[in-house]
Formats: sequence, C-alpha cells, structure tokens
Amino acid sequence: MSNELIQKLKRKLIVSCQAEGDSPFNSPEGVTMFAKAAIIGGAAAIRSEGIAKTKMIIDQTNVPVIGLVKSKFEDGSVRITGCFKDVEDLISIGTHIIAIDGTFRLRENLSGPDFINKVKSEFDCLVMADIAKEDEAIECAEAGADLISTTLNGYTPETIQDKIKSPNFELVKSIVDKIRIPVIAEGRINTPQDAGKMIDSGAYAVVVGTAITRPHIITGWFVDAITKTYK
Amino acid sequence: MSNELIQKLKRKLIVSCQAEGDSPFNSPEGVTMFAKAAIIGGAAAIRSEGIAKTKMIIDQTNVPVIGLVKSKFEDGSVRITGCFKDVEDLISIGTHIIAIDGTFRLRENLSGPDFINKVKSEFDCLVMADIAKEDEAIECAEAGADLISTTLNGYTPETIQDKIKSPNFELVKSIVDKIRIPVIAEGRINTPQDAGKMIDSGAYAVVVGTAITRPHIITGWFVDAITKTYK
Repeated sequence: MSNELIQKLKRKLIVSCQAEGDSPFNSPEGVTMFAKAAIIGGAAAIRSEGIAKTKMIIDQTNVPVIGLVKSKFEDGSVRITGCFKDVEDLISIGTHIIAIDGTFRLRENLSGPDFINKVKSEFDCLVMADIAKEDEAIECAEAGADLISTTLNGYTPETIQDKIKSPNFELVKSIVDKIRIPVIAEGRINTPQDAGKMIDSGAYAVVVGTAITRPHIITGWFVDAITKTYK
Repeated sequence: MSNELIQKLKRKLIVSCQAEGDSPFNSPEGVTMFAKAAIIGGAAAIRSEGIAKTKMIIDQTNVPVIGLVKSKFEDGSVRITGCFKDVEDLISIGTHIIAIDGTFRLRENLSGPDFINKVKSEFDCLVMADIAKEDEAIECAEAGADLISTTLNGYTPETIQDKIKSPNFELVKSIVDKIRIPVIAEGRINTPQDAGKMIDSGAYAVVVGTAITRPHIITGWFVDAITKTYK
C-alpha cells in the first residue's frame, strides 16, 4: 500500500500549495483552491503546511498530500515538523506522507536522522526527509526515511552559498547515485525547463511551489523584468 | 484626470485576473484574491471580466481597473464588451477603463471602430480597444479610443495563424510606429523575458494573465515538461 502510494509519484509533478503572512490566499480555503487548480492541471500530489490547511486539502481532494508543520524554535530558527506532537497531529488528519527536517540540526534533542528513526519506529507513516546536503540524505535514508527531498538546500546556515538562482541539479544527481530510495527535487524550480531537467538528473518527482502558487512573487518577476529594461 | 490615469500605466505591468468554467477561482472572491496578490507584487493595474468580479476588485483595491464583459453572440462568437448595456454596467460600477472589441466584426450593427466612436461620444469613459490586426488599431485610434491593446491577435478567424506560442512583438512595433495613443501588449506573454522584450518593442504597458493567475494552466506547462522528458 505505501509502495503503491510512492509509485503514484514517479516522474510526476507535486505542487506545493503554501501561503503565509500577508498573502490573500493565507487560509485553508485559499490554499485548497490552489490545490484543486493544481490537480486540474495534472499535479499528482500536493505539499501543504499547517494542520488546518492540510486537513482541508486532504478532505477536499483525492491525491496524496505531503504535510508538514513549520515549528518555530526559541532561537528563531525553524524546523519542518520539528516535534512528535506535530507528527501525531499530521497523522490524525490523514496526511499521506509526513515531511520532516532531515538536517543534523537538533530538535527534541535529536538530529534529523535520529528523529526520523524514532518516528518510523513509533508511528505507522511514510516519511519524506527534507535535507540540505548529501550526507544528511544518506543518513536519513539509513534511518528509515521513505523518500528524500532536497527542500532545504540553500536554506540552512551550512548551505546558504547554494542559494543561487538556479536549482541544484548536481545535488540531486549526486544523491541519486548514493541511495536507493526516491529522491524528490525541490527548491527554486521555477521553469518547466528546469523541472524537465530535474527528471533528467534522476529526480523521482519534482516539487514546484512559488512559480505556480505564489502569484505575488510571480508578479514581482514580471515587474522586475519590465523595470530593468528601463534602469 | 484621464491622462493622469493613463500615465500611471506607463512602462508598468497590468495583471489580468480572470477565471472561468471549472476554475476553483471562478468567483468574485477568487479573482479578487489574485488582484490583491498582483498588487502586492507590484502590478499597476488589473484587467477583469464580468460585472460582479470587476465590482469586487474595484471595491477592494486602489489601482485602475480595466473592465470588460464577454458577450456571447447567437452564432457562438464572443465580443469583448459587445453591447451598450455592458458599457453602461461597467461605468456604473466605477470601471476606470472599458475594454472593447476593436475588430471589424459587427455588434449592435456596428464595426469595432464605429462602436467605439459611439461609446466615446455618448459616454464619459476611457476606452481600451482590443484589436487583432494593425488596420483595426489604426481605425480604433482614429475613432477615439484612448488606448490600444493587442489582446485579440491570434484569436479572430483572420489572425488565427498568428496564434503561435510566442507573443507578437512585430505587431506591437508596427502599430507603435503608426499611431500616437499608447499601445498595450497583451497575449501569450508568459515569461518575464518576453514582458521586458515587449517594453523594448515599444509597448506602453504589458498585460500578463495566464502565467500569473491561471495556476491550472501553469501546472500543465510543468507537467508537459516533465512528461516530454520520458515520451
């Protein structure tokens, strides 16, 4: 059953439907509209943040949903699903795959791989490990993660230099060579060409968010292009 | 006053916020969320279809709104704001600029330029003439249109051969050379690069719709790119 679900994602598009801050779409209704539109357009799965938003998407659609909760720590840093309570909450609403921070940074006094290992032994759920670097991917795979996603590359202190405009094709290629579980490409994939190139690089599936579901950012790209013409 | 409003659009991005059919955003609330997001992202104006949707966008935002009503004719063809009643309705809700079909096709027994001439003489409003070809642009300018938009190029029987994937830069260049009123570029502008290139081609402003406000279509572009990789 779980393998069947993962099989459904093979060479498919996953659309991340998130909204935060001032976004007019920052509500369960707003992100659910995007999820429905993405499915009409051919998305095979949805990635969603927050319990209320994820629940509404699960209740109103019929594709696998990768859910997460962004936990804020006291030092201001953020972990993707950084405590066991969040895992329980996501399971309780029927989340198909739980995305969990797979970096070595501590949460509940555990590194990502150790936290994932404990989740896999104590809960019956599929886990997608969101990593920033290759060694994290390898350790998360060994710890029992069902899928790896390159979500955090460029967004941890150690990998901030990778936060370049283009997606990290080399990281995907390199991880695919070293582990057996599916590697999902996520992060800065803003054009259809780059999405295709990620599949060529060995990605099992591709996650696209901003370029589809953050119209204020897309608008900004167009405004920049028009403005630069006359700088 | 009217010139001031047109001046606000100079070298700016106009975002078309339309939704139809099965789109989850096909409601006044849905398109208004997109309008708000576009404005957050830097859009200088919104283009909107339908009285209820356009009214909500006008009421809830503070940028100029280009409004239109798609009128279906008995033969199945469509005109953009194709009868005087639609013009009156758009004016009554405070629409800043009325978009009107400027092709030679008849409506109310008048060609586009003749219809626009009558609107300009009987109503106090700004008119954007949506044209498909250069000669239509010239005649609409002579008829009193305040702005020209290339909206319909590729979408009339006579110009269907122009419905190629890329936007029609040559048409914009050619019209800009021949008339004095602002020429707005609209139609198939799906990348920031093309938007910048339109300004380089002499466009006064650029209208972008689908690439920002139709997430199901954008999703389809990504799905196609992923799928083609494995065809």
